[in-house]
Amino acid sequence: MAAQPVVLDALFHALADPTRRALVERLTRGPASVSELAKPLAMSLPAVVQHLQVLEASGLVRSEKVGRVRTCHLEPVALRTAEQWISERRTTWERRLDRLGAYLAEHPEEPHQEE
Amino acid sequence: MAAQPVVLDALFHALADPTRRALVERLTRGPASVSELAKPLAMSLPAVVQHLQVLEASGLVRSEKVGRVRTCHLEPVALRTAEQWISERRTTWERRLDRLGAYLAEHPEEPHQEE
Repeated sequence: MAAQPVVLDALFHALADPTRRALVERLTRGPASVSELAKPLAMSLPAVVQHLQVLEASGLVRSEKVGRVRTCHLEPVALRTAEQWISERRTTWERRLDRLGAYLAEHPEEPHQEE
Repeated sequence: MAAQPVVLDALFHALADPTRRALVERLTRGPASVSELAKPLAMSLPAVVQHLQVLEASGLVRSEKVGRVRTCHLEPVALRTAEQWISERRTTWERRLDRLGAYLAEHPEEPHQEE
């Protein structure tokens, strides 16, 4: 099933920020607590939390709170949705180019028609 | 070579809007003039031009003006750059999951160590 526009808006918006991409990058290597995620970043904890909220709203990250620790996980299905939208467009473009190449191969040096 | 953060910011920002994705979608089927691109869209020509400027700034679209007609083309390298960033992260995540699966297969029902 094709992703809803609003889902793609949120996904690409979430990926359009270097801090949020760094958080996704970190989470590809396994789940992490909010404070672990914040440690290597040169910003306040509330700023990191805000970025994580954007990632959660997009569906790229989910989190669970156990006691006082909130642990974040990557949601690879969301990553795949964004990837798929791009790869389908790229494929359409490449097929068009292939057809154009085949047409030109079948019609070599066709003279221009002049009236 | 890895894409610069600022390039990825611009690419994902450009894709985070339904009108801009519709423009990319149209251009996968071949070049088009600005007025052809605007025709199916329910917005003013200046609004479409603004979206095209965001797409050009991101590198996803380039355009040439011949006489009074500006023609837009898709730049598939940019599309591939965005796709590649996502697919590399997804692959890292999947490899981690494979290693986890292999570890669990080699260590079935390992008892918890208690002191």
